[in-house]
Amino acid sequence: MKLYEELAEQLRQSIEQGLFVSGDRLPSIRALSREHRVSITTVQEAYRYLEDQGFVESRPKSGYFVRTRACMPTLPEVSRPARRPLDVSQWEDILNMLGAENPSRVFSLGHAMPDLSSPTLKPLLRLWADQARRGDMRVLEYDSLRGTEELRVQIARLASASGCQLHPDDLIITTGCQEALFCALRAVSGPGDVVAVDSPCFYGAMQAIKANGLKVMEIPTHAEYGISVEALELALEQWPIKAILVTPTCNNPLGYSMSEERKRALYQLAQRFDIAIIEDDIYGDLAYAWPRPRTIKSFDTDGRVLLCSSFSKTLAPGLREGWIDPGRYREQVIHNKFVATAASSTLPQFAVAEFIAQGGYERHLRRMRAQYQRNRDLMVDWLERHFPAGTRISYPQGGYLLWVELSQDIDCVELSRELSDEQFRIAPGVLFSASGKYRNCMRINFTRGLDERTLSALTVLAEMIAERQPAPV
Amino acid sequence: MKLYEELAEQLRQSIEQGLFVSGDRLPSIRALSREHRVSITTVQEAYRYLEDQGFVESRPKSGYFVRTRACMPTLPEVSRPARRPLDVSQWEDILNMLGAENPSRVFSLGHAMPDLSSPTLKPLLRLWADQARRGDMRVLEYDSLRGTEELRVQIARLASASGCQLHPDDLIITTGCQEALFCALRAVSGPGDVVAVDSPCFYGAMQAIKANGLKVMEIPTHAEYGISVEALELALEQWPIKAILVTPTCNNPLGYSMSEERKRALYQLAQRFDIAIIEDDIYGDLAYAWPRPRTIKSFDTDGRVLLCSSFSKTLAPGLREGWIDPGRYREQVIHNKFVATAASSTLPQFAVAEFIAQGGYERHLRRMRAQYQRNRDLMVDWLERHFPAGTRISYPQGGYLLWVELSQDIDCVELSRELSDEQFRIAPGVLFSASGKYRNCMRINFTRGLDERTLSALTVLAEMIAERQPAPV
Repeated sequence: MKLYEELAEQLRQSIEQGLFVSGDRLPSIRALSREHRVSITTVQEAYRYLEDQGFVESRPKSGYFVRTRACMPTLPEVSRPARRPLDVSQWEDILNMLGAENPSRVFSLGHAMPDLSSPTLKPLLRLWADQARRGDMRVLEYDSLRGTEELRVQIARLASASGCQLHPDDLIITTGCQEALFCALRAVSGPGDVVAVDSPCFYGAMQAIKANGLKVMEIPTHAEYGISVEALELALEQWPIKAILVTPTCNNPLGYSMSEERKRALYQLAQRFDIAIIEDDIYGDLAYAWPRPRTIKSFDTDGRVLLCSSFSKTLAPGLREGWIDPGRYREQVIHNKFVATAASSTLPQFAVAEFIAQGGYERHLRRMRAQYQRNRDLMVDWLERHFPAGTRISYPQGGYLLWVELSQDIDCVELSRELSDEQFRIAPGVLFSASGKYRNCMRINFTRGLDERTLSALTVLAEMIAERQPAPV
Repeated sequence: MKLYEELAEQLRQSIEQGLFVSGDRLPSIRALSREHRVSITTVQEAYRYLEDQGFVESRPKSGYFVRTRACMPTLPEVSRPARRPLDVSQWEDILNMLGAENPSRVFSLGHAMPDLSSPTLKPLLRLWADQARRGDMRVLEYDSLRGTEELRVQIARLASASGCQLHPDDLIITTGCQEALFCALRAVSGPGDVVAVDSPCFYGAMQAIKANGLKVMEIPTHAEYGISVEALELALEQWPIKAILVTPTCNNPLGYSMSEERKRALYQLAQRFDIAIIEDDIYGDLAYAWPRPRTIKSFDTDGRVLLCSSFSKTLAPGLREGWIDPGRYREQVIHNKFVATAASSTLPQFAVAEFIAQGGYERHLRRMRAQYQRNRDLMVDWLERHFPAGTRISYPQGGYLLWVELSQDIDCVELSRELSDEQFRIAPGVLFSASGKYRNCMRINFTRGLDERTLSALTVLAEMIAERQPAPV
């Protein structure tokens, strides 16, 4: 390897590891020359080499910069799920992805775990410790059936950022967003009913649909615009659909945020067919653009939207602090909540409420939004370079999850099974389908960008995919 | 009031407040005379007066003692619920009893909240604080779908006291016992099925039956022997019952513990009809007799018993730490748990596991068992004296809940409604019935014995009941 190639390789690694991120100015030629004890020419050659490879760009009179993504990657195609209501399957694949028995010992490249290493989370643990130490026995009691007033007040306050006027009395604290979705589904439908969803769709919601004896109607969904309101309308005309379950903001797994127009159109459609909307907003506060996008709930004038969310993605999943504003379905949701878990854990509610009140939540969000956006670009760049040509990649507007669509010949379920000896797991696309579609897709978590563990898993994965990739025609 | 009457009144209050409990030796005549500056004769008259009233007893050459309960009170009659499967109702009454909106501002005489003021709970909070302060991020992650291994190991270890050989891998941590019961019910039955229960029956279980579209078959139950195995057999022959849900040890609300023979007979019956048993053991570790009674699960050879429990009654309900050993229904229960809440709160699991490992749980139990047994006697004595003749009272073998059966003319639902201006609430018997039975009954919590708040609530209640009591024939 020539000297300039060595230097270029070092710079490339720094970029991939996130030391320099999209748009960052790179060290000057003179500085690099001094630092690495190489000639000016060698540094110039190294930069030109990286420029050819698309890593950096030169700006006249300013130097070299990490290339900013000028455009979206080639997005996944609009999904084409089955055109009839289906029973949900795929539970076995989910158990496998969750690493079932020992999640902490296996690195899950596809699991939707946020980055918990940020120093902005420390004050939350401190508050938690303080409250336990203070020995206030309220933290050991059942809270009210709806959750502590302290936390409900804070959640209502935060909701104004999404254009919502929520009242603390309307909120019910749940054991994560999963319980919110579960209670919502049970409130608006009964066994045999059909629920429409965006597709691919969060597997937890789909399994809740399955467990409640419901059928799912998957609607074609675009990786930039979201669920097709037009296709949904056709489905509503054709099938006795009781509710629509969607994640319209920072979607999981596709990453899009629907425009206000499309959200409003979806709401109006629900009004016209007089059905409920279950809106999963769990990633909404992680939108890169601020102020964050409005929720569908913010357009709701007749209480047909059940807004579900939690702190699992913004703060930490182990808190199990979710909530629901059930709109007009309040009575049923309270009953569902009571029979499922009676109440949610009390102490974390006091700690989180105090953390929000002190401004810790917003500080943490600011940092995570920036980190996740940077890491999205790093990850998309890396995948474009190392995954086969023709790979399609989503371009999330928030959160930390990427959807990757490979050539039709690549079977991610098989890939996943072959990983059983490796120290990491992937989330094959089938988890997000009612009927085994999206086998050539996978979800990737980019919270930590291209840190060592992620990079080594991705490298193994890229090799495995390359081996299976058919020769270009 | 004469001098000796005044002294007797003071002694009576000391007994009722628990300063002296059943079997305690009372101060000598000489000591009291000195302390109160009254003559020996006055003290003798006071003690004789209390003896006449049944508060104290003299033992030759030993002095005066707080009277020990020589026998059970007059127990409630065997329940006679409807003889056919029913739909569960009574949700409105439960919401009212829970004080719905602001539980902490109203004293609930009937709510099943343990005493959280014991110093033996402090180390748990300390461990909790330590773990949060240590900043180990594992406490913020999702735990495994089944809960942390640390806690499952400790629960399996404790189970040997109930005659059970549980394996940590067989346990699933749940959000309180309510989620365990909910998941168990969903695993063994489907909409339209019939579930047999002891009657009166814990309202949370009955509401879970209702929410899952099941019907309930209430079985006559004796306040000392438990559910009638004979009546259950008749019901099994007559109706298509899918499962039996029982609380056979330290029953809620009746307080009995079924004998081993009856537990075994119940298990054999379930085998004969090939149905599942959902065993709620939530109060089992609070049995006054030690070693504690065996669970039905301990007789289980073919995995048909789903053992459900939690730390809500032994430690604190706000932890929301429950568990289930689902026996042969493992796969269904894991799926039910995943769709309902995905996982349970992580940090409390580490703290509780450590608390048990350090011996804190057993120390706490020892103290609470003694306290609750003392308070049972105090409360039963008080009720026998202040509630109308003919009142029937349960005689719990563990836990802290009493079942009181008043004259048929007393309507506790009405009583309950009239309490809306008072600072306390009662739990009318109808909550424990599928169809509005037990209106003349109520459940009373005796955790704190006859402390000021309890005594003042009971006094108001006794007056209200006396006003309504029909004249003896």
